[in-house]
Amino acid sequence: MKNDLLLRVARGEKTERTPVWLMRQAGRILPQYRALRGKLSGFKELVETPDLAAEVTIQPVDELGVDAAIIFSDILVIPEAMGLPYQMVEKQGPWFENTIKSKTDVERMIVSEAEGVRYTLDAIEITKKELNGRVPLIGFAGAPWTIFCYMIEGQGSKTFSKARRFLFEEPALSHQLFEKITRSTINYLKGQIASGADLVQVFDSWAGILQPVQYKEFGLRYLQQICNEIQEVPKTVFAKGAWFVQDRICNLDCEVVGLDWHSDPYEFRTQNPNKVLQGNLDPAVLYAQPEEVEKQTLAMLEWFGDEKHIANLGHGVYPDTPLENVRVFVDTVKNHHHK
Amino acid sequence: MKNDLLLRVARGEKTERTPVWLMRQAGRILPQYRALRGKLSGFKELVETPDLAAEVTIQPVDELGVDAAIIFSDILVIPEAMGLPYQMVEKQGPWFENTIKSKTDVERMIVSEAEGVRYTLDAIEITKKELNGRVPLIGFAGAPWTIFCYMIEGQGSKTFSKARRFLFEEPALSHQLFEKITRSTINYLKGQIASGADLVQVFDSWAGILQPVQYKEFGLRYLQQICNEIQEVPKTVFAKGAWFVQDRICNLDCEVVGLDWHSDPYEFRTQNPNKVLQGNLDPAVLYAQPEEVEKQTLAMLEWFGDEKHIANLGHGVYPDTPLENVRVFVDTVKNHHHK
Repeated sequence: MKNDLLLRVARGEKTERTPVWLMRQAGRILPQYRALRGKLSGFKELVETPDLAAEVTIQPVDELGVDAAIIFSDILVIPEAMGLPYQMVEKQGPWFENTIKSKTDVERMIVSEAEGVRYTLDAIEITKKELNGRVPLIGFAGAPWTIFCYMIEGQGSKTFSKARRFLFEEPALSHQLFEKITRSTINYLKGQIASGADLVQVFDSWAGILQPVQYKEFGLRYLQQICNEIQEVPKTVFAKGAWFVQDRICNLDCEVVGLDWHSDPYEFRTQNPNKVLQGNLDPAVLYAQPEEVEKQTLAMLEWFGDEKHIANLGHGVYPDTPLENVRVFVDTVKNHHHK
Repeated sequence: MKNDLLLRVARGEKTERTPVWLMRQAGRILPQYRALRGKLSGFKELVETPDLAAEVTIQPVDELGVDAAIIFSDILVIPEAMGLPYQMVEKQGPWFENTIKSKTDVERMIVSEAEGVRYTLDAIEITKKELNGRVPLIGFAGAPWTIFCYMIEGQGSKTFSKARRFLFEEPALSHQLFEKITRSTINYLKGQIASGADLVQVFDSWAGILQPVQYKEFGLRYLQQICNEIQEVPKTVFAKGAWFVQDRICNLDCEVVGLDWHSDPYEFRTQNPNKVLQGNLDPAVLYAQPEEVEKQTLAMLEWFGDEKHIANLGHGVYPDTPLENVRVFVDTVKNHHHK
């Protein structure tokens, strides 16, 4: 591989500079993406057409010079493969016609094999071929708790109170569903790795909504199962908002921990000297003047230190971010050589 | 006053038991409320009709036996009084036809006097008369940062990225708007106190979305101004999700700090032995079986300890909460006598 910075840092090695990529880098910030997307029927056509998914996966590598590609897909392919199809409604987000309400619903869900998401595996194979070793390719999946939220709620929510209600009303049934989601996710991640993913990231987007005791029971437990079973490549766990269990997350069998923009890089680095950390610039900083973007990016690099850090934002890049500032962010990291 | 438990605890006094009330106790959980609401044109009619607002304010005192009433109103009355009218769209939330986009827009906003929200002052006067000293009446307002979010965004948002963009693109203009919001809020709170509010609570619902440095500059600074200027009655600051600056919040000149359900009561209590704390049961616990609600409520009381604690949820009660469980929560606190 020509540029394996990301993988070397993920393994804890010293490198000449810090690698950089952005969550949601493949997507709406790039004019190439918008041009392609405008020709299609919708978001799902892009996810389910391997050639096109590969094309948009590679766009940010060409356009921004990031140190990794992340496969273009969606975390909701797993509920769909398990038996709950979703739609992506323009300007509104995901929507499921059916949701999980009862024991029968849970029993009806299948444990999906990786083949259940064949189009993403194909997209990974095509991407790997076309990348031709330029940078590593990241695979990903949603964490079981986040997937559970959508399967119960059927759409986004400010509180995910239906999903939280289900945990309290049906704890045993909840665990039954979590087991199925977790098995499906492990199968899927193993399939991505077999197809060529060099590192996998698990996104727990709604980690921050559970009380600590419940997050240990329903969140961490299944993240741990995934981390324990995936040993082929390095793993990154990004549990957004889960500040109240960050020490537990650092103790998972994962090489990299992703941080959102509320964690203090210096404090976190000091408390976890041996963990590789990823993040965590506030994505809103990229709305500032370019000089401010550069200044805050340099400050972040300083706080994390030269070792065991993968530069990224603290959340996905916002769609209306000026492309010029994304470049400033990436270039500032790339031009900052280690002492 | 017959039951002044809340005020005595807010002043740091020892009491025979812990006082209890619930954020959003006046509203959708009560059948009396739903019956009244069904006869009206909408939410705003209720907010703007003092007799009706007083009626629903008192309902939970009658029905649940809570130790405080909180005036039925909305934080968005302030932007409206400043010059930006809002609508409350059924099942969607607040919506503003006009939002702040430019210097002209900021300049057009007025610093509202308390009289700008006359209907809420009237509602407070009527409520006080009708409560006749049974329990204290809590007044409230949104924190400047949360109000700013709605004035820029014009509606709810997952990221409030327009508001955060405005902070970066127009820092000076942002401060100009914050000054106006803060002055209007102080005027409004002073008006509420003059009309009879016995304690005021400031809600910073979107505190958790800013990076720490920005929250200090745009959030805490104006909370501090409010706390410094209101000296007539005890103040509660509830900055949801602001775990990353909780020590700063505890250092504000406010008597009570509200906690969301992610903070560990025991840890927080130990670190802040002298502050009166309010909260923080996960509102989703009220979906559990009654025995579980009782168990978790008792555990919370144990962790906070007998002194300097006002029992509440960690967020507003969810509308579909079984009323029986709300009663279990309230009664468990009321039956737990101090040693």
